[in-house]
Amino acid sequence: MPAEATSPVSDLLSAETPSLVLDEARMLRNIARLRDRLAHFNVVLRPHMKTAKSVEVARRQLTDGHGPATVSTLKEAEALFAAGVTDILYAVGLAPQRLGRVQALRAAGCDLAIILDTPAQARAVVAASAEGAIPVLLEIDSDGHRSGLRPDDPALVAIGQILVTGGANLRGVVTHAGESYSVLGHDALAAFAEQERAAAVAAAEALRAAGLPCPVVSVGSTPTAHFARDLTGVTEVRAGVYVFFDLVMAGLGVCDLDDIALSVLTTVIGHQPDRGWVIVDAGWMAMSRDRGTADQPVDQGYGVVCDVAGRALTDLIMLRANQEHGVIAMRPGSDATLPDLPIGTRLRILPNHACATGAQFDGYEVALAQGGPLAHWPRFRGW
Amino acid sequence: MPAEATSPVSDLLSAETPSLVLDEARMLRNIARLRDRLAHFNVVLRPHMKTAKSVEVARRQLTDGHGPATVSTLKEAEALFAAGVTDILYAVGLAPQRLGRVQALRAAGCDLAIILDTPAQARAVVAASAEGAIPVLLEIDSDGHRSGLRPDDPALVAIGQILVTGGANLRGVVTHAGESYSVLGHDALAAFAEQERAAAVAAAEALRAAGLPCPVVSVGSTPTAHFARDLTGVTEVRAGVYVFFDLVMAGLGVCDLDDIALSVLTTVIGHQPDRGWVIVDAGWMAMSRDRGTADQPVDQGYGVVCDVAGRALTDLIMLRANQEHGVIAMRPGSDATLPDLPIGTRLRILPNHACATGAQFDGYEVALAQGGPLAHWPRFRGW
Repeated sequence: MPAEATSPVSDLLSAETPSLVLDEARMLRNIARLRDRLAHFNVVLRPHMKTAKSVEVARRQLTDGHGPATVSTLKEAEALFAAGVTDILYAVGLAPQRLGRVQALRAAGCDLAIILDTPAQARAVVAASAEGAIPVLLEIDSDGHRSGLRPDDPALVAIGQILVTGGANLRGVVTHAGESYSVLGHDALAAFAEQERAAAVAAAEALRAAGLPCPVVSVGSTPTAHFARDLTGVTEVRAGVYVFFDLVMAGLGVCDLDDIALSVLTTVIGHQPDRGWVIVDAGWMAMSRDRGTADQPVDQGYGVVCDVAGRALTDLIMLRANQEHGVIAMRPGSDATLPDLPIGTRLRILPNHACATGAQFDGYEVALAQGGPLAHWPRFRGW
Repeated sequence: MPAEATSPVSDLLSAETPSLVLDEARMLRNIARLRDRLAHFNVVLRPHMKTAKSVEVARRQLTDGHGPATVSTLKEAEALFAAGVTDILYAVGLAPQRLGRVQALRAAGCDLAIILDTPAQARAVVAASAEGAIPVLLEIDSDGHRSGLRPDDPALVAIGQILVTGGANLRGVVTHAGESYSVLGHDALAAFAEQERAAAVAAAEALRAAGLPCPVVSVGSTPTAHFARDLTGVTEVRAGVYVFFDLVMAGLGVCDLDDIALSVLTTVIGHQPDRGWVIVDAGWMAMSRDRGTADQPVDQGYGVVCDVAGRALTDLIMLRANQEHGVIAMRPGSDATLPDLPIGTRLRILPNHACATGAQFDGYEVALAQGGPLAHWPRFRGW
């Protein structure tokens, strides 16, 4: 059967384990879903490249290949710029010593913007802007999650004035409702999206009221991007994990299990029948230590177990993980029967958190939407 | 001050962040400590390379540079063999499809031994041993941690017979008291070490009583290696994280904070004064998601915060971590005062788990024991 011999499932039966499997058809469906949703609002989608860290994935996310894109490290910016992406927002608060790399990218033709929320950072940007005005977005805190200024903080206008007076380019405001990962249900997520929108728009209005420019109003997280009902005043939306989805997103109700495009291929290497355990060769070095579902109503352990074709096996999860060992078992309380999984059986594990699991690997083994043998897409890493 | 200009601390003030800093003097002290301790017992130390994944570190752990060594992946075995290490135990239960790589290493001159605990794996080894007898250690379960056969399981002798009859090379037994990571105090750790020793020796005696060979009796974990009081019948001890130590080991009482040789260098990028937070540019992508101290009496969050010279700052920990953001704050309940840490301040974070944090980086920035500028030692990764 020559067709069978080059199918992804056939390839997965002979691939090295553990390896990171990407289902391109699911990914394309996820990309289209958010693109189509945001087409109903008058906003730009600026996908976050921190999830996939892949040129091949970026090409499928970015409409024209040049952007707009969001990154979490300058390494991502440098790798994507080398691949033709020219409109990039570096969405982590500036460490002043990075301004040299920022200016080097800008001098090479990348429209790289940065974010900050303190006068000290603004003064560093002003000093560096002598070589060319650096575009800056002011970071707004919409939910107490981590960084940013509250929209009514007088420091917001003061920092804006430092930038404008000093010759930097004040481009707008940016916020991320990271706490949206901890609320459940469509109405609660929609309320969070409104909180995010309102904070960003209020900050933009405060800047404008002080005579400062604020062309960009950037909001976003995967949950709020999928459940926002009103984006008035917003110019762009950012989202990252939407491209692959994961068990945390499924637990929040943002996606279903069969939307999750990423899984870890593993091999059965042992059994402890007295304990109902199957031992596999994917431990936390493959899955990551992320236990993002631990605080959700359904704790998925280190991941949901699927057969090699990607079909979830009832109530089977990775209960424990050591560095190179995973312990597969029935979910506590389940009355389903542990399936027979002989030594050498291939399984696929859906991850808690796609960003964290992806980072454990140097690349993807891709089941292409068009069919045919698995492709290999490299990932970049580091800072 | 030219001397100052090339000192490690001076280099750390200009290094990229986040980066992985290794204090070689502390590491050499940790290596000497376990070597000296085991010199009092008639056993070989077979260090586990899964912690450092570094040729330079291995050269400092391995007495003559050729071994003995333990690995958790064939990638580690291949990288170390290329660097001259020839006596290697691959201490994760065999996935049968890996036998080709095992035999390729052996054919090239590497004395690579494998472990297993099922008849199916033994039959696969027998089939592959037609090209050359593969040395096998049988995995023993001494504490219910994950894999292995109980010493009194009749399958132990049955599997040994499959191997010997089939022309493989039954080299011995191996066990790892992984549950020793969950007990506290020197007496409890010594009791665990005795449980580990007794299980391995009982398994060896069962094999010998059946007329099977068992020259090697291999035990070990970092906690038990440091607290074993009797190693009668044991021929070798394995340990991994002892080379760097970490907060989990400090929490168990195996080491002190100032024995920890690994830290993550980071830069302050923000403040939330109302919440008592300092934001740094090392998140879980740098620290890993490992929260190994969460269940210990003192929860260290994502790590203990030190100044750039490596001195721990009283009660300051990384409370939360996002992908590229860490939130530094006083330990809950502390009455110490949050120090002034302006934007751009460099800090070093001691990790919960050295194996997990190390894996987030491509290499070490090394403060050499001899002084002088930082050295860069690469790490290997993957499977």
